[in-house]
Amino acid sequence: MPGNTFGHSLRITTWGESHGTAVGVVVDGVPAGLKLSEEDIQKDLDRRRPGQSEVSTPRSETDTVEILSGVFEGMTTGCPVSMLVWNRNANPNAYDYIRDIPRPGHADLFYQEKYGIRDHRGGGRSSGRETIGRVAAGAIAKKLLSLHGVEVLAHVIELGGVKAGSVTFTGIRENVEKTPVRCADPQAAEKMLEQVRLARNEGDSIGGIVEIIVTGVPAGIGEPVFSKLDADIAAALMSIGAVKGVEIGLGFECTRMKGSQMNDAFVIDDASIIPDTNNAGGIIGGLSTGLPVICRIAVKPTPSISKSQRSVNMAQMSEVDIEIHGRHDPTIPPRMVPVAEAMMALVIADHMIRSGWIGPESLMK
Amino acid sequence: MPGNTFGHSLRITTWGESHGTAVGVVVDGVPAGLKLSEEDIQKDLDRRRPGQSEVSTPRSETDTVEILSGVFEGMTTGCPVSMLVWNRNANPNAYDYIRDIPRPGHADLFYQEKYGIRDHRGGGRSSGRETIGRVAAGAIAKKLLSLHGVEVLAHVIELGGVKAGSVTFTGIRENVEKTPVRCADPQAAEKMLEQVRLARNEGDSIGGIVEIIVTGVPAGIGEPVFSKLDADIAAALMSIGAVKGVEIGLGFECTRMKGSQMNDAFVIDDASIIPDTNNAGGIIGGLSTGLPVICRIAVKPTPSISKSQRSVNMAQMSEVDIEIHGRHDPTIPPRMVPVAEAMMALVIADHMIRSGWIGPESLMK
Amino acid sequence: MPGNTFGHSLRITTWGESHGTAVGVVVDGVPAGLKLSEEDIQKDLDRRRPGQSEVSTPRSETDTVEILSGVFEGMTTGCPVSMLVWNRNANPNAYDYIRDIPRPGHADLFYQEKYGIRDHRGGGRSSGRETIGRVAAGAIAKKLLSLHGVEVLAHVIELGGVKAGSVTFTGIRENVEKTPVRCADPQAAEKMLEQVRLARNEGDSIGGIVEIIVTGVPAGIGEPVFSKLDADIAAALMSIGAVKGVEIGLGFECTRMKGSQMNDAFVIDDASIIPDTNNAGGIIGGLSTGLPVICRIAVKPTPSISKSQRSVNMAQMSEVDIEIHGRHDPTIPPRMVPVAEAMMALVIADHMIRSGWIGPESLMK
Amino acid sequence: MPGNTFGHSLRITTWGESHGTAVGVVVDGVPAGLKLSEEDIQKDLDRRRPGQSEVSTPRSETDTVEILSGVFEGMTTGCPVSMLVWNRNANPNAYDYIRDIPRPGHADLFYQEKYGIRDHRGGGRSSGRETIGRVAAGAIAKKLLSLHGVEVLAHVIELGGVKAGSVTFTGIRENVEKTPVRCADPQAAEKMLEQVRLARNEGDSIGGIVEIIVTGVPAGIGEPVFSKLDADIAAALMSIGAVKGVEIGLGFECTRMKGSQMNDAFVIDDASIIPDTNNAGGIIGGLSTGLPVICRIAVKPTPSISKSQRSVNMAQMSEVDIEIHGRHDPTIPPRMVPVAEAMMALVIADHMIRSGWIGPESLMK
Repeated sequence: MPGNTFGHSLRITTWGESHGTAVGVVVDGVPAGLKLSEEDIQKDLDRRRPGQSEVSTPRSETDTVEILSGVFEGMTTGCPVSMLVWNRNANPNAYDYIRDIPRPGHADLFYQEKYGIRDHRGGGRSSGRETIGRVAAGAIAKKLLSLHGVEVLAHVIELGGVKAGSVTFTGIRENVEKTPVRCADPQAAEKMLEQVRLARNEGDSIGGIVEIIVTGVPAGIGEPVFSKLDADIAAALMSIGAVKGVEIGLGFECTRMKGSQMNDAFVIDDASIIPDTNNAGGIIGGLSTGLPVICRIAVKPTPSISKSQRSVNMAQMSEVDIEIHGRHDPTIPPRMVPVAEAMMALVIADHMIRSGWIGPESLMK
Repeated sequence: MPGNTFGHSLRITTWGESHGTAVGVVVDGVPAGLKLSEEDIQKDLDRRRPGQSEVSTPRSETDTVEILSGVFEGMTTGCPVSMLVWNRNANPNAYDYIRDIPRPGHADLFYQEKYGIRDHRGGGRSSGRETIGRVAAGAIAKKLLSLHGVEVLAHVIELGGVKAGSVTFTGIRENVEKTPVRCADPQAAEKMLEQVRLARNEGDSIGGIVEIIVTGVPAGIGEPVFSKLDADIAAALMSIGAVKGVEIGLGFECTRMKGSQMNDAFVIDDASIIPDTNNAGGIIGGLSTGLPVICRIAVKPTPSISKSQRSVNMAQMSEVDIEIHGRHDPTIPPRMVPVAEAMMALVIADHMIRSGWIGPESLMK
Repeated sequence: MPGNTFGHSLRITTWGESHGTAVGVVVDGVPAGLKLSEEDIQKDLDRRRPGQSEVSTPRSETDTVEILSGVFEGMTTGCPVSMLVWNRNANPNAYDYIRDIPRPGHADLFYQEKYGIRDHRGGGRSSGRETIGRVAAGAIAKKLLSLHGVEVLAHVIELGGVKAGSVTFTGIRENVEKTPVRCADPQAAEKMLEQVRLARNEGDSIGGIVEIIVTGVPAGIGEPVFSKLDADIAAALMSIGAVKGVEIGLGFECTRMKGSQMNDAFVIDDASIIPDTNNAGGIIGGLSTGLPVICRIAVKPTPSISKSQRSVNMAQMSEVDIEIHGRHDPTIPPRMVPVAEAMMALVIADHMIRSGWIGPESLMK
Repeated sequence: MPGNTFGHSLRITTWGESHGTAVGVVVDGVPAGLKLSEEDIQKDLDRRRPGQSEVSTPRSETDTVEILSGVFEGMTTGCPVSMLVWNRNANPNAYDYIRDIPRPGHADLFYQEKYGIRDHRGGGRSSGRETIGRVAAGAIAKKLLSLHGVEVLAHVIELGGVKAGSVTFTGIRENVEKTPVRCADPQAAEKMLEQVRLARNEGDSIGGIVEIIVTGVPAGIGEPVFSKLDADIAAALMSIGAVKGVEIGLGFECTRMKGSQMNDAFVIDDASIIPDTNNAGGIIGGLSTGLPVICRIAVKPTPSISKSQRSVNMAQMSEVDIEIHGRHDPTIPPRMVPVAEAMMALVIADHMIRSGWIGPESLMK
């Protein structure tokens, strides 16, 4: 069973390779009656696209989205929304040198082993460019959620070892886009930027941590025991290339705490029962608690580096050295921010439809 | 869409509540021709069952499994394998005091909010007892995998802040079951045990970290881009109660590394190309690399503690204090070891069938 | 990917073999807050069970259902409902003679070819006894539907070439259970019964047609373009053993009509727009029209007959003659009535949940 | 849960409306290493496209397919194959008169009721143009099957009451495309054509029956008990617009037979056991028998007719008469032939992958 479809009640199928004709997505299950235009999608694609700043690859793509179906007179119809982005700045020949030499830290070798063939150009399907479909679909999910009072926001909280200070949700919303590293703490952002420059100058790369916060999720979302909200979030985020860890709430930190410290006590607030603290990160027993959903992902340093690395020429079966001089990002977390938001939004919207919080059929009724 | 089914080519559906009649599982997709008896299942259930040692709850259950279908003359037939365990030592009245008072850190309140009704006895469906079905199904997956050279092993590597020293795979296999804390480093195990006793004496609880290792997975397992091997593992492990984080390979640690440090170089070994190191934890680009799959899960401290905690009486809408004196574990990771192995084995077996490494139909052909 | 799970928002997984330990079903997605007891299930199982009358097999089974999970204090909890029926009157040795000799018209040979092993006793998993799980699950679906004004009713409209006269829905409800052939036209029923007796006396069997009618389905149920209501109904009914055809509304008859005859004109009725006639059988374009859903299934004559037939001894690879003297029904349609109702009810309930007509979570809210 | 995805191991997602920008399909699970070009797809699209002959709509579309992903240097890569066809001859304004007036026999009213909005132009998503995606995907399935010795062929066996005489499989292959009605019996084809002309001249339409035959399917394909081969075929075919019935083998005819007549006896043929006759139509107990799979579908007369019909103006809630003068086919079965082949091929290929007869990963290994 293949793996290019994600979600249940809101379901996306992505397709496309880095240097093929185009990349795209089909989004099925979008409730009818949602106002939707290319601009709604484009603004998130613009946050994802290459060439935005010094922290991203210089590949020049406008990544202009086209909506091909599912929207009629500015409204979704309940039919699948198909979207695509043409690959304009493809430069396939630039990758001839990796046709036979898999890049360390990349999926090249394993695609070759799995399928017996691969589109080697820019990583083909395993390229970060694959996330365009996710971001386009996520933009629809975000619009749908915002109509139901749910907001999804991600930001870089650590980059190259530099940790951001604590920031409020409002602070994130206001500041995260002001710096190319997408860190909402301006002082830390400056230091992170310095780390990015250092790494690039060394022909190396750095990793970091992205935090995703969702406000407004009602209590009781999630489907025990296997499609728990945190299980689906973990899958969604871990499916993004370069992510090596996911944690919810206090995550790994809580393993060193006592139960009496970790448990969120219940209190009455405005006639409803809520947890007094949010150590759990908004999810307990796989169900949302009504407090913000908070999770963090570990993003490895970009595997493409110009420093010399050891690899193997598969055609000649000889060990060789490789330096990767294609266009690539010195660090991934800043560009992963919109991707992480998209995947999170898709999971939350899917579960809100599954739970009946968002009508499965029409916003017009 | 409900959530009690997991997997694709090997698919389990679990059912049952902590103090209901029974708990069980239906396993669909077990290839025909696998020798299978209750003993194969029972040995893992015995590792999971309560009352094993001082680190687990004193609830006394033999947890004897019955296979009700899918096995004929000692062999699986390709038809669904239904298994159940009767709840013998159920003590439902012991839970009357939590009918109206949700326990902090537990799912009680959120089941109530989601469903408008809940079986409050021992947590009902959200109890750790739900994992019996997972472990029973996992035992079949493990047997299937072992026939194909794949071994799954979990161990506790940190408990109550005590970290285990480095241990070899063989060392884990030989030592992990020698101590009730399931830590393969005997010195650390002693200290962990001390932490468990301290916590219990304080009426408190501790958390920890479990590592799961899989050897023998061929390269190329996993289905990009959403059913990547690590995405499915993350979902599987995060779906276990009390898990708050999952990481693969170096996980969060790699966020502080350079690309040149993190990337696993490729070398030729015995005429095949393999990564020289295993920082990636056996998975790159969502595909297995041929090296051991390694991941770790963060397990929160047991939410059931006898220390007084603040909660709310839902019937009276008044804030109250609650002390939980039912039977419970002072720490979860030791008992989670067989559960984590089971979920991991289910994911790996599912993907090996999906990829054609294990025939979907019959081992007899 | 295995095939023992059916449905999406209301999802059943069945298990068990004819002469194994038990047969059963897990029903996932039952909304919380439905009053449910064994009696609700038993009444449909009693209509399905063997030994009811001269038209069914003399195997003596009470088929007493046990609900093992998902119901608390008489109400469903939203957790999976597991049900089983023990096989009491199993007589496995009676089937030794077919261990090596596949019965014509049965799946014996093809299970053997597919799986390399089979439980030959009474057909194992391919036995009509497999439908117990369907009927038990269907009883829940029917109860859920009846709360929402939907009623499902099946009846035999042709048996051994004898056609029933036209009967009203009320007439079916009142008369169908008065005769062992489950035909609501008493005169035709007498003639059908005569055909059954003739066939049995000859050691032969007869087939027939069952019609299923659903009233109260709101307009707009169904999910184009692949999970159309008629597509899912066709799959559900064709998945029942011995069914060789499914038609909706006028079905094959409409192939000889003109468009001007077949089309159902629209009229205004009580301020809503409805089709004036129901040639379409309540489904157009894969969506319910608001008129009764009507379909018919072709049921082949029972393949088990005591007349001599040609087969092959698989062990000796020699052609042999076989007479089947086990307990079997001389005709299937009368006993298929509750099974067809169950499958239809499961599809309709699933789609009403998918479309938001039945809340996915709780009837208590 | 939405419905625009079909299949399990070979899975298609279609999108697009009749007069929108384009229509298309994403095919996931195509094994790597299949030689594939636009020509492979185009030849079936050409059989489906409008304007081929006097029996089809005069809408002029070349329906030129573009492959956007999943093929590299002429070979499939195992990644999703995305294909689209632009709508060139869209004439949306021609449909203004049906914006408020649902056409009898069409889904217009029910889309409006389900979604609260619809793309009324040419039926939008419910148009026969939706089948382009099916045919394009089916062409891949057919190519894959042909490499494994499986051939799928459909032909019209009855049209407007004219029945075709018996034809051999070879006869079908050779003659079916020689006549615009796609009936392999030339004499009957002439009479059918006459019926088409008569109907068109009357401003009316006629229905018919299409038979689909698959040769070369190995025994044991299908996944009991819900994803039986015939169940999945029934769903696949019933999901095509205008289909009102599906039957396998003798279908409804067998309901009037005795078991002794219907059962296919087993004989030894060339050292293997096969049914001596094929009354079952190649499927028993939901599994393929090794003989040709044979099924028939009932296709209703085209609902679009220029004869006056009664309908309702939804905006004014008044009863009105409507005459449909858009471009439409006087009869559907001839153009349904490639669509039915496509759906059948998709089901068979899906099940052959599920059963391991076609490798899930690569044809290159």
